[in-house]
Amino acid sequence: MTFGIGSICAAAQKPSIEPPPLLLGAAWYPEQWPESRWNADLDLMQKAHMHVVRVAEFAWTALEPQEGKYDLDWLERAINLAGQHGIYVIVGTPTAGPPVWMATKYPDILVTEANGKQYTGSTRNHDNSNSNRYRQFAREMDERLSKRFGHNPYVIGWQIDNEYSNQSYDPATQAQFHAWLEHRYGTIDKLNQAWTTAYDNQTYSAFNEIPLVNGTGDNNPGLWLDSKRFISESLRDYQKVQIDAIRKYAEPRQKITTNMMGWYDLYDHYTVGQDLDIIGWDNPQVEGSFDPIKNGAPHDLMRGLKGQNYWVMETTAGPRGGGDASIQLDKGAMRTAIWADIGHGADLVSYWQWRDALNGGEANHGALVDVDGEPDPIYTEYSQIGREFEKAGSAIQGTSPEASVAILHSYPSRWDINWQKMNPAYDAINSLMSYYTPLHELGYTIDIVPPDRDLSKYKLVIAPGLEVLTQAEADNLTRYVKGGGHLVFGQRSAMKDENNSRWPQRQPGPLTQLLGARVEQFTSLKNPVAISGEWGESKGELFAEQLRPQASDVKVLMRYQAPHSWLDGEPAAVTRKIGTGSFTYIGAWFGDAGMKRAVQWMLTESSLKPDDFAVPDGVEVYRRVAADRKVFIVENLSHAAQTVVLPNMMKDALTDQRVHSVKLPVYGVAVLVQAKDVTR
Amino acid sequence: MTFGIGSICAAAQKPSIEPPPLLLGAAWYPEQWPESRWNADLDLMQKAHMHVVRVAEFAWTALEPQEGKYDLDWLERAINLAGQHGIYVIVGTPTAGPPVWMATKYPDILVTEANGKQYTGSTRNHDNSNSNRYRQFAREMDERLSKRFGHNPYVIGWQIDNEYSNQSYDPATQAQFHAWLEHRYGTIDKLNQAWTTAYDNQTYSAFNEIPLVNGTGDNNPGLWLDSKRFISESLRDYQKVQIDAIRKYAEPRQKITTNMMGWYDLYDHYTVGQDLDIIGWDNPQVEGSFDPIKNGAPHDLMRGLKGQNYWVMETTAGPRGGGDASIQLDKGAMRTAIWADIGHGADLVSYWQWRDALNGGEANHGALVDVDGEPDPIYTEYSQIGREFEKAGSAIQGTSPEASVAILHSYPSRWDINWQKMNPAYDAINSLMSYYTPLHELGYTIDIVPPDRDLSKYKLVIAPGLEVLTQAEADNLTRYVKGGGHLVFGQRSAMKDENNSRWPQRQPGPLTQLLGARVEQFTSLKNPVAISGEWGESKGELFAEQLRPQASDVKVLMRYQAPHSWLDGEPAAVTRKIGTGSFTYIGAWFGDAGMKRAVQWMLTESSLKPDDFAVPDGVEVYRRVAADRKVFIVENLSHAAQTVVLPNMMKDALTDQRVHSVKLPVYGVAVLVQAKDVTR
Amino acid sequence: MTFGIGSICAAAQKPSIEPPPLLLGAAWYPEQWPESRWNADLDLMQKAHMHVVRVAEFAWTALEPQEGKYDLDWLERAINLAGQHGIYVIVGTPTAGPPVWMATKYPDILVTEANGKQYTGSTRNHDNSNSNRYRQFAREMDERLSKRFGHNPYVIGWQIDNEYSNQSYDPATQAQFHAWLEHRYGTIDKLNQAWTTAYDNQTYSAFNEIPLVNGTGDNNPGLWLDSKRFISESLRDYQKVQIDAIRKYAEPRQKITTNMMGWYDLYDHYTVGQDLDIIGWDNPQVEGSFDPIKNGAPHDLMRGLKGQNYWVMETTAGPRGGGDASIQLDKGAMRTAIWADIGHGADLVSYWQWRDALNGGEANHGALVDVDGEPDPIYTEYSQIGREFEKAGSAIQGTSPEASVAILHSYPSRWDINWQKMNPAYDAINSLMSYYTPLHELGYTIDIVPPDRDLSKYKLVIAPGLEVLTQAEADNLTRYVKGGGHLVFGQRSAMKDENNSRWPQRQPGPLTQLLGARVEQFTSLKNPVAISGEWGESKGELFAEQLRPQASDVKVLMRYQAPHSWLDGEPAAVTRKIGTGSFTYIGAWFGDAGMKRAVQWMLTESSLKPDDFAVPDGVEVYRRVAADRKVFIVENLSHAAQTVVLPNMMKDALTDQRVHSVKLPVYGVAVLVQAKDVTR
Repeated sequence: MTFGIGSICAAAQKPSIEPPPLLLGAAWYPEQWPESRWNADLDLMQKAHMHVVRVAEFAWTALEPQEGKYDLDWLERAINLAGQHGIYVIVGTPTAGPPVWMATKYPDILVTEANGKQYTGSTRNHDNSNSNRYRQFAREMDERLSKRFGHNPYVIGWQIDNEYSNQSYDPATQAQFHAWLEHRYGTIDKLNQAWTTAYDNQTYSAFNEIPLVNGTGDNNPGLWLDSKRFISESLRDYQKVQIDAIRKYAEPRQKITTNMMGWYDLYDHYTVGQDLDIIGWDNPQVEGSFDPIKNGAPHDLMRGLKGQNYWVMETTAGPRGGGDASIQLDKGAMRTAIWADIGHGADLVSYWQWRDALNGGEANHGALVDVDGEPDPIYTEYSQIGREFEKAGSAIQGTSPEASVAILHSYPSRWDINWQKMNPAYDAINSLMSYYTPLHELGYTIDIVPPDRDLSKYKLVIAPGLEVLTQAEADNLTRYVKGGGHLVFGQRSAMKDENNSRWPQRQPGPLTQLLGARVEQFTSLKNPVAISGEWGESKGELFAEQLRPQASDVKVLMRYQAPHSWLDGEPAAVTRKIGTGSFTYIGAWFGDAGMKRAVQWMLTESSLKPDDFAVPDGVEVYRRVAADRKVFIVENLSHAAQTVVLPNMMKDALTDQRVHSVKLPVYGVAVLVQAKDVTR
Repeated sequence: MTFGIGSICAAAQKPSIEPPPLLLGAAWYPEQWPESRWNADLDLMQKAHMHVVRVAEFAWTALEPQEGKYDLDWLERAINLAGQHGIYVIVGTPTAGPPVWMATKYPDILVTEANGKQYTGSTRNHDNSNSNRYRQFAREMDERLSKRFGHNPYVIGWQIDNEYSNQSYDPATQAQFHAWLEHRYGTIDKLNQAWTTAYDNQTYSAFNEIPLVNGTGDNNPGLWLDSKRFISESLRDYQKVQIDAIRKYAEPRQKITTNMMGWYDLYDHYTVGQDLDIIGWDNPQVEGSFDPIKNGAPHDLMRGLKGQNYWVMETTAGPRGGGDASIQLDKGAMRTAIWADIGHGADLVSYWQWRDALNGGEANHGALVDVDGEPDPIYTEYSQIGREFEKAGSAIQGTSPEASVAILHSYPSRWDINWQKMNPAYDAINSLMSYYTPLHELGYTIDIVPPDRDLSKYKLVIAPGLEVLTQAEADNLTRYVKGGGHLVFGQRSAMKDENNSRWPQRQPGPLTQLLGARVEQFTSLKNPVAISGEWGESKGELFAEQLRPQASDVKVLMRYQAPHSWLDGEPAAVTRKIGTGSFTYIGAWFGDAGMKRAVQWMLTESSLKPDDFAVPDGVEVYRRVAADRKVFIVENLSHAAQTVVLPNMMKDALTDQRVHSVKLPVYGVAVLVQAKDVTR
Repeated sequence: MTFGIGSICAAAQKPSIEPPPLLLGAAWYPEQWPESRWNADLDLMQKAHMHVVRVAEFAWTALEPQEGKYDLDWLERAINLAGQHGIYVIVGTPTAGPPVWMATKYPDILVTEANGKQYTGSTRNHDNSNSNRYRQFAREMDERLSKRFGHNPYVIGWQIDNEYSNQSYDPATQAQFHAWLEHRYGTIDKLNQAWTTAYDNQTYSAFNEIPLVNGTGDNNPGLWLDSKRFISESLRDYQKVQIDAIRKYAEPRQKITTNMMGWYDLYDHYTVGQDLDIIGWDNPQVEGSFDPIKNGAPHDLMRGLKGQNYWVMETTAGPRGGGDASIQLDKGAMRTAIWADIGHGADLVSYWQWRDALNGGEANHGALVDVDGEPDPIYTEYSQIGREFEKAGSAIQGTSPEASVAILHSYPSRWDINWQKMNPAYDAINSLMSYYTPLHELGYTIDIVPPDRDLSKYKLVIAPGLEVLTQAEADNLTRYVKGGGHLVFGQRSAMKDENNSRWPQRQPGPLTQLLGARVEQFTSLKNPVAISGEWGESKGELFAEQLRPQASDVKVLMRYQAPHSWLDGEPAAVTRKIGTGSFTYIGAWFGDAGMKRAVQWMLTESSLKPDDFAVPDGVEVYRRVAADRKVFIVENLSHAAQTVVLPNMMKDALTDQRVHSVKLPVYGVAVLVQAKDVTR
């Protein structure tokens, strides 16, 4: 069924339990405006074919003006009025903004920074999520909200808190950390051994001597990593308190999520994401033009958290208003950006925000409706997307991206590389992107997943910098290779175990025997080093690992070239066939062209073919797959009109035409359905 | 009467109540040197034709060695000895340097930084000017000083404190802030509404929950701005305590001032300046060469504080001695710089300092007399200025700069732009200078005044960045335009009201109807955008406002050019005739050449003619006017001798010659008087 | 006697009291590994011809697991096992790492930063060395160690603490500072006068009002300098506590040292170094290539601390593992670097570290043996050096570098220049290096010594930036010049006295009369200034001092050239003959070529001839001298093989050949002995 305007209007009268499959929306803060204005705003949303609003995420004082005095009525009126406009609602728990009265009366609910400074009450994301008192306040609020809205037909989801971004280091949290460590290690001796605290005489005699640290505060990588683990698990616990409070009353159809922040790494997103029904994240677009690769990778990261479609809780196309240069997206670019979101697996996109607050830290932020209550220019473009979502919704419903290539990513590894860069220019994400970029350019859908995920569905798995690798993860990778998989390690792989201790085999640690080779030594590079072999000539930069084959069937793919002293003639990349699979270790970075050749080799070795059909330069293709069909989202990001010839007849879901080729203007988008009944 | 050496010497014997009209002087710290040396120093000053010294600004311990034990005798001896050398005295109140004994006994008189750290006693400008205890100490000291020196014939003025530059954030000051807020808003609900605290749930339930913040600490622009207002008014109160204590005994002829710091913006200088008899400020010159425009604008700012002539309390021409590169002014450049000071309206210039202290934070600072008590090379140049001040004094007496063009400036606007730059390269002062510079180059005297000043005397008023504009200010501007004035707004005008809330009409807020146009949207610029129209071709950079005419008689002056997406073909500058006046809004920055053409257009529209006569490139002219004469200070800052042909016969006050033209060597200066008895 | 493998093996059985004359070693941390591994490690060391290990520097918890419970047995077993492998031992006192149990129980033993923050127990170099409690703990530990090992035949030395690098600012330390000031000045009035606290009203009424500061905290250069002096003397006291505790039992043959850090300047190394038997320092080499000049100067600084040979306690050739780019030394470069160490006067070189810890802040640091217990590639190169040390030991025994040129250096001067740079690009070490570099390039051995050292043995003494010069130091220099010495002052000389007060004569202060000239004024330079004269044409940069001859026999060597305003035609360098000596003042920096010509002139004036014979470009020569022989260490750092022709027949101690010339491959080294029995 095509979900058209007609059915929407019907829905506005008597809400269906099923919202449209593709949702376009915005953050709406009714508590900031007179109730008499609400209808005008919702009318404007409806005209823009929007079907979802996020509400209440910062409304605690409006919901509980004084301790114990609650007022949820206004919110119910707002939700129902939205529903009457065909607009579904995601209710935010207001816990990222505890009321000032609470902060004044119970300052222990506020974050204490690592330097001992406590936040004041007049900011946001300043709640101490480790505080038991605060968790109790959150539970009470959430239960009241879910009791009231858990059966509301317009409410389709819950967003917990907002952009988790602060950790408290107060004494009570430190005490929780001590208990956590005791639970993890049992005895202080085991901890001392795991962290090799004998180094620099940091041997502990009791758990309560150990400070929770922020990054490389103090002096032990084991401590750094366990601090991060504790932070991640604490946040998960805090989130679980809220999930339980919501689920106590909420119907199962209401999905619980939060809004994460892409590459942000305060906490391990795999840990925190696992209890959510669906992943949500915030994806601002304020750099003038839309970069499909740089912006694409975090989408794949977020999709990989649960291996499922996800929601984009916040996007924006205009100035953000603070100190940074925030540049409006080009006309039409937001449309391509949002369709790219869908291409990566988003099923909902929501603008931040509907209308600007008149004051507050983001009063200069762009919005769909300006301070005067009239639409901003971007509103028109957004309305177009709304119409298109309605048109294409049924075609896209039930589809997801599907990849045969995975890139492995882990937070412990990323943290540790950034803690100990060994070269200030070295960056864990850049390292990952050096493999992601050519894969994307060559037309592959990419999954970004953690190393403990079942990998059997992938033909090729690339691990660009799994510096920290646990034994269990190593076993998983071994299983993968022995099952016929093609595994590639990049620089800085498998150097540390789960305690952030060096694996005593040198790199790749527990996989050294499987590889039949090891990293002999490594160094930062002052000057580029020539490298040549199977993948042609290239220049290595930043960092080099000198490999040494130990098994006779290891093949050297690339060698460092003279004159570079220790590296002269030494292996820079090796590979070994293992059954029908293979294991490759690449100790160098070859530059953009070199990495592309390396990736092409991997694809050939893995017998992979591109997921997407060939398109002109500057045209992007995203693929979503269901059992009965494939949907291709095709976008023209080049500076001229482009014609894309299709491999077979498809149906353009935006025009309802059957086409063999599409002509796309600059920033043009087509949503092409390939299915039996179409191609026939 | 010409004020020559003879009369000075007479004055030294029996002081006249009237000091010379132009005063050259220095900061003299007799308490740092043996009394036996005083006479030698004053002899050297007298030889340099200096007639003023600043004393006692950091002499508290010498004046009150122990609590309650005062010693003012040495200061009286120093003042009288100065007077006997024809040298008048400005007495500094020593409050920028409370004694260490006081800091030790009463640490609450010390500044507590926003981070909670309290200053130690062994620095300067570390007094907590909000402290009631400290104010009481200051009052007591000032009353004793004024009782002793309020009738001293050599004392011509008082300088309060020194370079106000620190604000305390201690709990008692916070409590004052709470009371101040309560007085301003009456109820917490009104404050919540004014600041839109509903945004991000920052709603307050009591005034004492609100922290006084430093810049963008915490999260509300209304709070930021009111914190600044409180700081400004607190400083005014503190200063008023001292003014009252001095005035209790001091004769009215003794002028009370302080030494401000040009563009410095800790506090609103209009607020703090209003109670002073005369504005004083410090104007270091340590960049090797003298920049008449960059250095000229803050003079006009300072003159505009009260719309009157002012004093330059500190100038310097040599190294400042700290970590920065401080480069000596070229030989002769200080003379042009000081005569330019006079040209901008200074009636007094004082060097910092007379002779270097042997130790202390500025021991490496340049001075007129070196550590050995002998003159430094700059002393000779300074003496020449002294002679010239004596010669030209009577000609200049009673004159002031007079402008038909004003640039509007407000501290709330400057603060808010710098708090929320939206482009890191955007700078509120640069924006002002983009109009000031061409006006100066085209030969205009410029007033820099606040938007609530009576503007009726100006033909052209330019407001480059009044981001914050109150309703009263808007009314004042409306009156100006309706009275036939020509008003020009630059980028980032009239976006916020007095609470730093967005005006709900979009820009220019309450003047949108008067303009008949509004700012449709704005963005930072990543790449320059071509703009063309009435003012030719130019490239816009950094930031762009897209204008939209709403009234039919609005004329579009400039348009953005393709390819720049949203901006293509949209208005970048519009104007509207309103009676005999006009109102113009410029949403772009056109680069140096473009801004000059824009300014030329404004001048033509306002039927303005240059104040100064035409001169060769590199020659600067400053004009001071009295009822009966005009005085032109002409300086050659080019790298070759220049001949300046005068529009009519003038008298060179430095040579007593009547001239039709003057030939100026490099760094040459002429002081030309145009009066009926001269031109005849 | 040649010290060959044979005798070593004998030594391993029954230790001789005399270790080999040249010692190669490593830091060994037996407490981090199972005792069963010790023998394997020591075997590997023995195979590498290593003869020394440093142990126990961070082993406090292993030595005293609980308060008052000591366990020194394991250390004794480790030492004796080492000795049985022909490996001598330096025992580190473990005081840079107090146990966590101690930090927990007695937090006053931890450093409190200047901002008030106290360190936690889980880091290193965090002990408060001013704490009496901590000194008592250190004394007790050291006495137990020396009682146990003070007669152990394998123990040849003691290293106190590790890389002194933190100072506490806690209240008890502040009180020590007050007592120290009282002892130094007697009365507060004398202090006030010495520091000119009248400036900015910083007059103190009691010593306990004065804060110990960190750099330019607060506002008085006298305070800054005395804070540094106190820190230096406190550290000396702390070290003396440990020296006394060790010496209580240790045999005199056991040398007491510490490991300093080259140019590091927390404390005055002349103060702290004087009580040590031998200077030790840490000299990392992690920049890929070996820079003989940049790395050479700190060797000469360290040798100059006591004017004796010294030890290199730590060197490294590979990645350091943290955030910095740490680049492995080229193959062969470490060998040249270590032989250069010997050339500068080192008699011992020790690698950090033997084998990497599995965890801890330096787990990624390079080592000789990798995490797997197998040698790293660098081990082979290190073994070669070990063999060479054995071969060349007897030739080098008893020799030392010997210089006829000295560069003067003082910590107060270096601190003060860096506190008040006057040009951000000005750097006290760069200034010193501008003289050091050409001297080195011209073939001279250079002593770097303090200005109070007996200088009579030098023909030429250069003082590039003795900004702070005491009267006693001035007298020493006067004696030197009057005794026929040639003294050269560079920029920023003799500006301040021992209280960091300006000398009232202008520069060069108390030596102005001796020079017959003074610095008239100084300035930073924005643009380069041409300078010409005796030393040709050059460009001055950064900073310029304008000199003024006062005596008739002063000769102007160089003059600033127009157009540069005040400087035009003024003297930039002057000289005066004084008896058979001379005194030269250079107020400018002439660039690399200009400085070389200036230095050549000085050498000619001082009738000096190079210490080393002529060699091809890129070949370095180091000379060590004994009564009966000279030893030349010749290294080829160029990129091609080089032939070095010798001035006479020498014996190559590494090959035992008599040679007239040596052919050196890239990174080749020869150790050439010139002695009567060889040249005959």
